[in-house]
Amino acid sequence: MFQDNLTDLLENVQNGALSITDAVSRLKTLPFEDLGYAKVDHHRSIRNGFPEVIYCEGKTTDQIRGIFLVLMRSENNILATRASSENFAGVRQIAPNAVYYQQARCIVVNPVKKNQDANHYIAVVTAGTSDIPVAEEAAVTAETFGNHVERIYDVGVAGLHRLLAQLDRLRKADVVIVVAGMEGALASVVGGLVEHPVLAVPTSVGYGASLHGIAALLTMLNSCASGISVVNIDNGFGAAYSASLIIKEIMNGCQE
Amino acid sequence: MFQDNLTDLLENVQNGALSITDAVSRLKTLPFEDLGYAKVDHHRSIRNGFPEVIYCEGKTTDQIRGIFLVLMRSENNILATRASSENFAGVRQIAPNAVYYQQARCIVVNPVKKNQDANHYIAVVTAGTSDIPVAEEAAVTAETFGNHVERIYDVGVAGLHRLLAQLDRLRKADVVIVVAGMEGALASVVGGLVEHPVLAVPTSVGYGASLHGIAALLTMLNSCASGISVVNIDNGFGAAYSASLIIKEIMNGCQE
Amino acid sequence: MFQDNLTDLLENVQNGALSITDAVSRLKTLPFEDLGYAKVDHHRSIRNGFPEVIYCEGKTTDQIRGIFLVLMRSENNILATRASSENFAGVRQIAPNAVYYQQARCIVVNPVKKNQDANHYIAVVTAGTSDIPVAEEAAVTAETFGNHVERIYDVGVAGLHRLLAQLDRLRKADVVIVVAGMEGALASVVGGLVEHPVLAVPTSVGYGASLHGIAALLTMLNSCASGISVVNIDNGFGAAYSASLIIKEIMNGCQE
Amino acid sequence: MFQDNLTDLLENVQNGALSITDAVSRLKTLPFEDLGYAKVDHHRSIRNGFPEVIYCEGKTTDQIRGIFLVLMRSENNILATRASSENFAGVRQIAPNAVYYQQARCIVVNPVKKNQDANHYIAVVTAGTSDIPVAEEAAVTAETFGNHVERIYDVGVAGLHRLLAQLDRLRKADVVIVVAGMEGALASVVGGLVEHPVLAVPTSVGYGASLHGIAALLTMLNSCASGISVVNIDNGFGAAYSASLIIKEIMNGCQE
Amino acid sequence: MFQDNLTDLLENVQNGALSITDAVSRLKTLPFEDLGYAKVDHHRSIRNGFPEVIYCEGKTTDQIRGIFLVLMRSENNILATRASSENFAGVRQIAPNAVYYQQARCIVVNPVKKNQDANHYIAVVTAGTSDIPVAEEAAVTAETFGNHVERIYDVGVAGLHRLLAQLDRLRKADVVIVVAGMEGALASVVGGLVEHPVLAVPTSVGYGASLHGIAALLTMLNSCASGISVVNIDNGFGAAYSASLIIKEIMNGCQE
Amino acid sequence: MFQDNLTDLLENVQNGALSITDAVSRLKTLPFEDLGYAKVDHHRSIRNGFPEVIYCEGKTTDQIRGIFLVLMRSENNILATRASSENFAGVRQIAPNAVYYQQARCIVVNPVKKNQDANHYIAVVTAGTSDIPVAEEAAVTAETFGNHVERIYDVGVAGLHRLLAQLDRLRKADVVIVVAGMEGALASVVGGLVEHPVLAVPTSVGYGASLHGIAALLTMLNSCASGISVVNIDNGFGAAYSASLIIKEIMNGCQE
Amino acid sequence: MFQDNLTDLLENVQNGALSITDAVSRLKTLPFEDLGYAKVDHHRSIRNGFPEVIYCEGKTTDQIRGIFLVLMRSENNILATRASSENFAGVRQIAPNAVYYQQARCIVVNPVKKNQDANHYIAVVTAGTSDIPVAEEAAVTAETFGNHVERIYDVGVAGLHRLLAQLDRLRKADVVIVVAGMEGALASVVGGLVEHPVLAVPTSVGYGASLHGIAALLTMLNSCASGISVVNIDNGFGAAYSASLIIKEIMNGCQE
Amino acid sequence: MFQDNLTDLLENVQNGALSITDAVSRLKTLPFEDLGYAKVDHHRSIRNGFPEVIYCEGKTTDQIRGIFLVLMRSENNILATRASSENFAGVRQIAPNAVYYQQARCIVVNPVKKNQDANHYIAVVTAGTSDIPVAEEAAVTAETFGNHVERIYDVGVAGLHRLLAQLDRLRKADVVIVVAGMEGALASVVGGLVEHPVLAVPTSVGYGASLHGIAALLTMLNSCASGISVVNIDNGFGAAYSASLIIKEIMNGCQE
Repeated sequence: MFQDNLTDLLENVQNGALSITDAVSRLKTLPFEDLGYAKVDHHRSIRNGFPEVIYCEGKTTDQIRGIFLVLMRSENNILATRASSENFAGVRQIAPNAVYYQQARCIVVNPVKKNQDANHYIAVVTAGTSDIPVAEEAAVTAETFGNHVERIYDVGVAGLHRLLAQLDRLRKADVVIVVAGMEGALASVVGGLVEHPVLAVPTSVGYGASLHGIAALLTMLNSCASGISVVNIDNGFGAAYSASLIIKEIMNGCQE
Repeated sequence: MFQDNLTDLLENVQNGALSITDAVSRLKTLPFEDLGYAKVDHHRSIRNGFPEVIYCEGKTTDQIRGIFLVLMRSENNILATRASSENFAGVRQIAPNAVYYQQARCIVVNPVKKNQDANHYIAVVTAGTSDIPVAEEAAVTAETFGNHVERIYDVGVAGLHRLLAQLDRLRKADVVIVVAGMEGALASVVGGLVEHPVLAVPTSVGYGASLHGIAALLTMLNSCASGISVVNIDNGFGAAYSASLIIKEIMNGCQE
Repeated sequence: MFQDNLTDLLENVQNGALSITDAVSRLKTLPFEDLGYAKVDHHRSIRNGFPEVIYCEGKTTDQIRGIFLVLMRSENNILATRASSENFAGVRQIAPNAVYYQQARCIVVNPVKKNQDANHYIAVVTAGTSDIPVAEEAAVTAETFGNHVERIYDVGVAGLHRLLAQLDRLRKADVVIVVAGMEGALASVVGGLVEHPVLAVPTSVGYGASLHGIAALLTMLNSCASGISVVNIDNGFGAAYSASLIIKEIMNGCQE
Repeated sequence: MFQDNLTDLLENVQNGALSITDAVSRLKTLPFEDLGYAKVDHHRSIRNGFPEVIYCEGKTTDQIRGIFLVLMRSENNILATRASSENFAGVRQIAPNAVYYQQARCIVVNPVKKNQDANHYIAVVTAGTSDIPVAEEAAVTAETFGNHVERIYDVGVAGLHRLLAQLDRLRKADVVIVVAGMEGALASVVGGLVEHPVLAVPTSVGYGASLHGIAALLTMLNSCASGISVVNIDNGFGAAYSASLIIKEIMNGCQE
Repeated sequence: MFQDNLTDLLENVQNGALSITDAVSRLKTLPFEDLGYAKVDHHRSIRNGFPEVIYCEGKTTDQIRGIFLVLMRSENNILATRASSENFAGVRQIAPNAVYYQQARCIVVNPVKKNQDANHYIAVVTAGTSDIPVAEEAAVTAETFGNHVERIYDVGVAGLHRLLAQLDRLRKADVVIVVAGMEGALASVVGGLVEHPVLAVPTSVGYGASLHGIAALLTMLNSCASGISVVNIDNGFGAAYSASLIIKEIMNGCQE
Repeated sequence: MFQDNLTDLLENVQNGALSITDAVSRLKTLPFEDLGYAKVDHHRSIRNGFPEVIYCEGKTTDQIRGIFLVLMRSENNILATRASSENFAGVRQIAPNAVYYQQARCIVVNPVKKNQDANHYIAVVTAGTSDIPVAEEAAVTAETFGNHVERIYDVGVAGLHRLLAQLDRLRKADVVIVVAGMEGALASVVGGLVEHPVLAVPTSVGYGASLHGIAALLTMLNSCASGISVVNIDNGFGAAYSASLIIKEIMNGCQE
Repeated sequence: MFQDNLTDLLENVQNGALSITDAVSRLKTLPFEDLGYAKVDHHRSIRNGFPEVIYCEGKTTDQIRGIFLVLMRSENNILATRASSENFAGVRQIAPNAVYYQQARCIVVNPVKKNQDANHYIAVVTAGTSDIPVAEEAAVTAETFGNHVERIYDVGVAGLHRLLAQLDRLRKADVVIVVAGMEGALASVVGGLVEHPVLAVPTSVGYGASLHGIAALLTMLNSCASGISVVNIDNGFGAAYSASLIIKEIMNGCQE
Repeated sequence: MFQDNLTDLLENVQNGALSITDAVSRLKTLPFEDLGYAKVDHHRSIRNGFPEVIYCEGKTTDQIRGIFLVLMRSENNILATRASSENFAGVRQIAPNAVYYQQARCIVVNPVKKNQDANHYIAVVTAGTSDIPVAEEAAVTAETFGNHVERIYDVGVAGLHRLLAQLDRLRKADVVIVVAGMEGALASVVGGLVEHPVLAVPTSVGYGASLHGIAALLTMLNSCASGISVVNIDNGFGAAYSASLIIKEIMNGCQE
């Protein structure tokens, strides 16, 4: 980004189309819009084709709505995560076609179409039923980013046969997102069974010595299986973002 | 113990065989021998048939030898754990037939015979090669307590087929001891496959966020599989002791 | 399970009763029923004679009711733990004979009869009055699994005479479950007094440096007494499950 | 793997080429070789084209040599990580062409050639000079797996201009591995600058409140930048493994 | 207790006043009353002259009232700590003269008179205003145990002159209880100024890295001043109990 | 303080204006007023020109009002932090001109004028929108202490261009306060860009492994950039106080 | 101290014996001697009759010797703790009659006589043999401070009868110091058996989840028994200091 | 820096003195020198007048020497911290006038003169003798940066009179650096006594629950005194750097 901008700008300075003062000033007017409480980035979706994402936690509904208003002037495919139903009520007033995914706690406005090749998909796997909300955040995020998703839920290692019955769907995925709380052992077992990148999401599901997800996090970081990398506790969005970057690279690889 | 002792003692008081002063004093002379730095318990093996066990860490070789001398006056089947080869050198001078198990770091003197029924055995399972010393402490302890042991080593979940190939031996065990470091996921997977009590031993094998065994410990405590209980990090002895109590109860159950 | 299933299946393939395609497909149709949000296991009670157990925390009442409906088609003796009274209200609509144990937070449907021999029992011991809810989860679970239970409550080590007065009942138990919060010292003292397996359950009872049960958990893991293994904080169910496996093995031992 | 094996096996059973007893027994003889202390997997490189990797920590030189011997019978491209120079001395006796990478602490035997397309490379970035050993473990691993690697060292955020000067090389990489200790902020900054997957490796470099890498680990897990996933502290190997899986998928994508 | 009881009992056995069976049974009927959910100890106040204390947290109002009822049959001077106003409402119905100390969260029934010598007093010191509730628990407990108390509040080390102005009252105390949250440095400063035992009570007052009192607890445990010992976070009762034991010993020392 | 007070006092003793008894007694009557629950310091503003500050958390509205009443008798420029709107309602009854800053949660009464030289200012920088309340506590505190403040919000490192666009304002500040949650990397980046003291305030913004601000705190303490010092989590006030001391010294430096 | 010094000094100022300048200067020359690296306090033993104590850890032998030289000019009864045998060799050169207690790691020079009344003694109790070095630090400290000490070693709760046999000696002590590692449960049990102040010393004895004494520390802080206060891990000296203060107060109480 | 560089560069592009390609390339050639393992920054001392500082931990002597060589070509006043005597031996070979400060573990080459005004000084204060090495790192750093330093050692709060005797020197300092281990309370007390910025350095001095400096760190972060900010454990250099920035601003303030 810097590189290209600089070259353009320098050419304009050289050919007189741009004064030095203007050039310096423009170098400061970088591509975001300042709302005071937030600096909204207009170029991100141009840069990587992914939607602009609003993280709602800790923001007021008014702030969230303000950011939506700015983005909707120039962007499609806007995603808000960790959105409460109250946040959604506020957003719907200015974006009537906004959709709210309740389990995932996501708002989506003007989504893009999915990529065409359903053979390239992300598998989202959970150990238990209670891990589903985090998994849905991952699945909705990945879908909003244009990906195909296969959901494989409640296949924790205590009943290994449930997991083994899904081996085909797991192994054909380009990337696997494993969402697990309690002891988080599912990531290791999946990591040992597939030969694709595994993104592990510890959840805060559990009690006592699960320490709000720390136990699952440590399990995943210490996995004896290779090919596993880890995101923050309950961070379904983060795993989906990384998975989407991988899929994008694979798709790009095909086209080169 | 208290119960029986009290009844005997009271009868002797009643029939005049024992004065009150003597009775009170005898109530204090409980069945141990005081070496100053240690109070050696002579009755434990009478009580439960298990050997007296000396935990060597933090004791000098002289202290260990002193305790051996006292025990050898009246006991067979003496076990010392966490023993260094230097400790062993000291003990062998007074107990020429002492045996040293190097990996297990155990000294055994005058072991008893194993129980006759090899169908009742304890399976000791490790996730990796590095977990073997802790597993051997468990195995040698269990054998010294008279049990049959099946060793199933290096069957961690990263290569699930290695574990599944041992399913028979695992499922026929009365108790399974799972020894695993790193993320410790093996305990959950074994717990989901067998229908016998599983004793999980986290080991300090690992690095970084394994936190010297804390990660594996948390994994095991939070296991989504049922029937798993946990002992301290690297505590092979403790798992073998609990497993031996269970076997003893089963064997007693048969005889009742 | 795998072993037997495979043998049967292979025989059917050999004798033509089963086509290869069907065999492969059947190998995938393992014995659970997929509700989307949960994969309900129909074979568990066949495998070990224990009830199917539903862990309610993190599930909606609708999900819990859905799982009950599936299980009730083929199973007796269904247990739900960590159930709120709201969960129970929902379940009772489809299972009018369901029973709710309020302190234990358990729902039981169609329980089996207890085993006949009351001499084989599990002692459930608490240090204080505040530990009783966790103890009741253990006791109700054990009873639902067919066991006899002796409750020995409020015998913490600050008043040792209260514990010593229960020595007989403690020592005659096949397994002792010790439930204690605060500093959790009761496990060590009981472990030193009985010669049976002790399952220790730390509770989150306490304040300040009890760290929501971590203090008691560490105490129990580091116990100087042998024969103690530990389950997760407040996990009365887990201790009862392990204890029931031991009792089952003892009872089986008698019959062999 | 299971799937194909089962189909072949069932066909042989059906056509009488294989007895049922043999089939069951073969299902157990899965493709690894049992050394007692280790179960060596012969099929991994067939499965994913990656070398068999030996993790040396906690293994004796004899054990390591034993595993090399087994692997060298059938495999090329063998990698051993966390190898001491003493381990290397032992291995060289049986593998004279073994190469030792001292900073990376890796032994490589019979490496494969790199992939042909140098445009697909992994950038390995460090914050400081002290992070280089971990970075080298990542780089040597990635190269042994056939990848091109660009090393960009000592570009920590305290001197942002050093990093910005490398923006081109960073942005053209398919995957970026960021290796940083102390506060680990480099991962977030790189994550904000590139649009490719970032694998973050916290190192134990630092002192005081760095807590042996925990501080950097937490920083990376909580990154405000998207597209970052994290491996264990000092786990250069793990990051390279995941990165290699991604590159392999991209390369495969091109060929499809 | 045991000692005297045993002597009496044995004499009665010897002179025939007590049968052996009765003696054994009496040895079990130790001096507490079993309410099922609680075993109320009737002998404690005989043993050390201190009131029986009911810790209300985690008990229902019904349970608390039940224990009060049992104690009021034979005891004066009953103290309940961590009592809510709702608990008090329940207790007042059966003990109309019960007094509730709101800040201290204590209920007192039938208190004894204070000791006569006001020169022997306990100083209760707080760092800030927010520490007062914990200090009041200590003060009310100490007063209910018959002691004189001097309250010295809001003298934290940020304004050292406030503390130095109270030096006289501090130094004449027999025991000083220091109650402090945040960084808890007051304990060290007081410990350096007085030559009497200091009991330090960390409070959960503070925010952020105070970790709910852990910071103050660590400060106090690591104090560079001598003569300081520490109780649990917010445990005003515990400090007052220990202080009262010391005062009792001093008073007894005078009378011997 | 001590020094001057002592000299005056001693002169009065020497010239007979003050008796020894009075002198000793006056040495105790140090300059604060005792409300029982609080010892209000009247001299602080004389000592350093800063307002008296009331920390409201853990104090009742009545206590807060009582302290305001005492201070308003003799002081201007009174600041209350961590004040709820309920606290404010109480204070306004006695101080009608009190102002409440809602985001900052501060009450200010009779503020002083700012210093004249707007070139000396404190920059208050946040990583995200959610960090603004803590930043406002810092900004309002600094302004109440007479300083000029530049607010630079939502410039986290994930979009480095937003920060670089503010470089001028950052570099001209005398002191920079960096307020950041999540991974807190902004402090390191700012520390590497400016040559003025940086005060870093970790916030509790974040989730999962942010551990309520501990992750950001550790990041800031381990910063590879120099010139950064850290205050407690969410302690905007503390950073502003330190910053104000620095500005005061610079202003004083000018006048000397 | 301050109080008396001020009165004397003011009288001298009043009667002209002291000029104001000298008085101010003397107020600064407080009673310690400055060695540059240490400020040695000459008045401590005058203040409380206890020896001056040198904490050797982190000091060079030269520094230790320097402090001894200063103290020996005016003091008897000098104690150095955490002294290595190398430290002792250095000290003996300047203090030929110095005594070294190897297990306790203490050096004592010119000790005072013990108090006359052997009925007033401190009981020092250990759970195991490995706790003895910490207990000896406590015992030697207490004896150097003039107290009688009863050593009761290796009476951990795993064999309760060993402890109960010592009940008499425990109950007659004025203060009990309980030294225990591993789970530290001994403190609670002793606290429930005696009616005197108990000072609990957690030791770093143990392994795995004992966390270098943190487990025992938490146990002791959370004790359900009353009358227990706690000092730092392995801080035998600190417990003995507090115990000695209590004994001194009791002895003083007798004389008043 | 960026700002000015860009303006110059753009002017040269405009007036044809610089081609666009060269301009882009120059924008990349930022002012550091790349040694492969390190990128040495030549402009830092121009930017802020402070020496270039080499952090030696984790670097080989060869690497350190290489960096010295590069810096010595263009810089005076080079400081290396955490340098071993072995590092120094290597550096002296290429810089014969290098000076090694053993306690501080610092190497200094060609230091600048101190600033002229000795009234502006930094006070470096320690709680104990064992904290001196960290304090010396701070003092030598500050002096190498041209500042006057007053050392005030061994004035911990256990003997408050030692600190109060130094009040004058403390209060006249522009900045106070407080270095303390164990419980670190000295920072709060100093913070309450002076009206200048206090930089607190926790040290790893202590044992048991000091947790290698974490206890002191928490104390300092939670200080009830205002005006204190904190650096990493044992980070004397960091405190001196921040203090030097403040002094520089004051001196600059004077000159403006």
